[in-house]
Amino acid sequence: MKDKFAQRASLVKSSETREILKVTERPEVISFAGGLPAPELFPVEAMNDACRAVLNEDGAASLQYSTTEGYIPLREAISKRMQDIGIESTVSNILITSGSQQAIDLTGRLFLNDGDVVICESPTYLAAINVFKSYNATFVEVDMDEDGMIMEELEKKLQENPHAKFIYTIPDFQNPTGRTLTRERRQRMIELANAYDVLIVEDNPYGGVRFAGETLPPVKHFDTEGRVIYISTFSKIFAPGLRIGWVCADEAFIDKYVAFKQVADLHTDSFAQRVTAKYMELYDIEEHIQKIKAVYKERCTQMLSCIEEFFPENLSYSKPEGGLFIWVELPQGIDSAHIFSECLKNNVACVPGTPFFPNGTRNNALRLNYSNMSAEQIVEGMKRMGDVLHRELTRETTVL
Amino acid sequence: MKDKFAQRASLVKSSETREILKVTERPEVISFAGGLPAPELFPVEAMNDACRAVLNEDGAASLQYSTTEGYIPLREAISKRMQDIGIESTVSNILITSGSQQAIDLTGRLFLNDGDVVICESPTYLAAINVFKSYNATFVEVDMDEDGMIMEELEKKLQENPHAKFIYTIPDFQNPTGRTLTRERRQRMIELANAYDVLIVEDNPYGGVRFAGETLPPVKHFDTEGRVIYISTFSKIFAPGLRIGWVCADEAFIDKYVAFKQVADLHTDSFAQRVTAKYMELYDIEEHIQKIKAVYKERCTQMLSCIEEFFPENLSYSKPEGGLFIWVELPQGIDSAHIFSECLKNNVACVPGTPFFPNGTRNNALRLNYSNMSAEQIVEGMKRMGDVLHRELTRETTVL
Repeated sequence: MKDKFAQRASLVKSSETREILKVTERPEVISFAGGLPAPELFPVEAMNDACRAVLNEDGAASLQYSTTEGYIPLREAISKRMQDIGIESTVSNILITSGSQQAIDLTGRLFLNDGDVVICESPTYLAAINVFKSYNATFVEVDMDEDGMIMEELEKKLQENPHAKFIYTIPDFQNPTGRTLTRERRQRMIELANAYDVLIVEDNPYGGVRFAGETLPPVKHFDTEGRVIYISTFSKIFAPGLRIGWVCADEAFIDKYVAFKQVADLHTDSFAQRVTAKYMELYDIEEHIQKIKAVYKERCTQMLSCIEEFFPENLSYSKPEGGLFIWVELPQGIDSAHIFSECLKNNVACVPGTPFFPNGTRNNALRLNYSNMSAEQIVEGMKRMGDVLHRELTRETTVL
Repeated sequence: MKDKFAQRASLVKSSETREILKVTERPEVISFAGGLPAPELFPVEAMNDACRAVLNEDGAASLQYSTTEGYIPLREAISKRMQDIGIESTVSNILITSGSQQAIDLTGRLFLNDGDVVICESPTYLAAINVFKSYNATFVEVDMDEDGMIMEELEKKLQENPHAKFIYTIPDFQNPTGRTLTRERRQRMIELANAYDVLIVEDNPYGGVRFAGETLPPVKHFDTEGRVIYISTFSKIFAPGLRIGWVCADEAFIDKYVAFKQVADLHTDSFAQRVTAKYMELYDIEEHIQKIKAVYKERCTQMLSCIEEFFPENLSYSKPEGGLFIWVELPQGIDSAHIFSECLKNNVACVPGTPFFPNGTRNNALRLNYSNMSAEQIVEGMKRMGDVLHRELTRETTVL
């Protein structure tokens, strides 16, 4: 049989990180590698109530085909929640997607021609890189500091790439860095997008999980020309397994998203949509989110003090006010892949930073996840990792 | 703002049929237009039990992120069910998708370059046409008779299109015609695919719902070279709302499907996968399918005898042995879109046949769905439709 694959099939490889995650699943490994919410916080009992209520009240409808746009009461609840953070919308601006991953994929599908330029933070979310690569995009990375993407750098890149299609940004507790874009920079990003006529794709899965500092309005809050496509999800505030995400954008965009969503999978699971809406009707999701925040704050604080205590001094790291991740930058010349394999020998795991740079330009950083391990596991794992780092960073210094 | 859409955005329009279905939702309309299973047959109580059991036994895991390939016990159950119909597989051959629609979409994404030739039955499934169009495919239609795709015609098309990528076929109770490909033709299709080095995409959502005649092995049963990509779903035998479909193919293909599935939506709803598997563990799905078959048989028989009784004689129609649809072919020169709008004035709906022909070459057929209306509604609706057809077919004859 001749090779039958389309050209684009060569653009997506089985994710490196996915392979890494498989290795880290050995029970003796303390893993800071994944990006999983704490499963012990999932509202299992409430979910049981919501399932029963949906099946009792609307059993047949919840199991039947439904509209591509999504369940109206769920879209209404989302619209209301978004209003609370400063985004005005109606249900017509909202499409329910199969997780925010599908919203990112549909965005690539709708907007990216071969070779189109995507401007993004350096580093950025791995699974978004894989989506945009699958549409053969070109990546232009913009440097960050602890306040997120640097606007002077962004403007330079916009000048150099007058046909850039969109800016992809994760403004709150970015994956992988945990950094948050300041209010001033959000406003400036909109001004630049208007001036250079590019779209902004605002991916905001973590914004709901802020456990310190002041809540900032989303970039879309400052949008004056309908340029911001806002993407979010219930994965970090309810249950990722249900795959309920959404995209919020101008109706002219949403119409096309709906047409392609229909092609992609007809509609998102009717039952999961109704159960999510029912959960918010029966329970106070804000109360649930407070519990998540308290636990993540404790774990993040624990991990940060472990870095202080157990890690060498010649590295820097982010101090997130929410989300799931801490980013550790090692001295120049240290190879994170090597650190990763040494860590694994010591039964502790993280993600080497290289795959988060779409052009593969840097390799001396690590992503640590704190949401999925207990405080005790964090202490033990960070000790193990600290041992490796002390040894490897000293050795490297000696060699240099 | 300049137009930002990618070129491919113009390849997908909001589905005509979807717009049609909206019109037919008026409560006074008896609709044979949709393709919906009978909701009164959904096992709502059993679903309740399955949800409770999953949440009690594996609550956290069922709400957490899971593997892209899908829940192993579900893939094992599918593998076993496929063995019963003559397909040998292991879990490594199976990827769970968000409905069979996503399996079709991933197939287009993996295999179709711009302009690639898809060979299909004429007419064929509308939503598959929309998928392949979205990848800018060229359609080569093969004529059918009551025994499905005509193999001599297929061979001619294969000769004329030596670079055709795949044959897309719905062998059992095809949508829209309700026709079934004979055993001999299935074997011949494999011979031709081998000889002309093309893939076969076997879309089999209805095979489980045979209510008359002898069960035939799937085309994949005869596959000798791993050329058949088999796609199916729980939508017609359990609950379409849950969006649980699958693709079964050689591992080398599945590896690539998995990579693109991960890009598309990470994985299918963990909870829905576990609930589906749990349902099959707690209940006998075959018993449930028997109930579906009995009802569909009654409704199909009812609709066929209404055609005999109420429709004019100068038309032909299929006599399905399963599935959801009857296909009515009107005399040459009759415009099905006109018939549709006259029917709608009479408060009865069907789908005009034109959109099922990817190249738009024919317009004198109608698709009727019998699964979603009661026997009483079928009688009343068919009377109304018969009145329109008598009037319109007589008028046309007079004019001609």
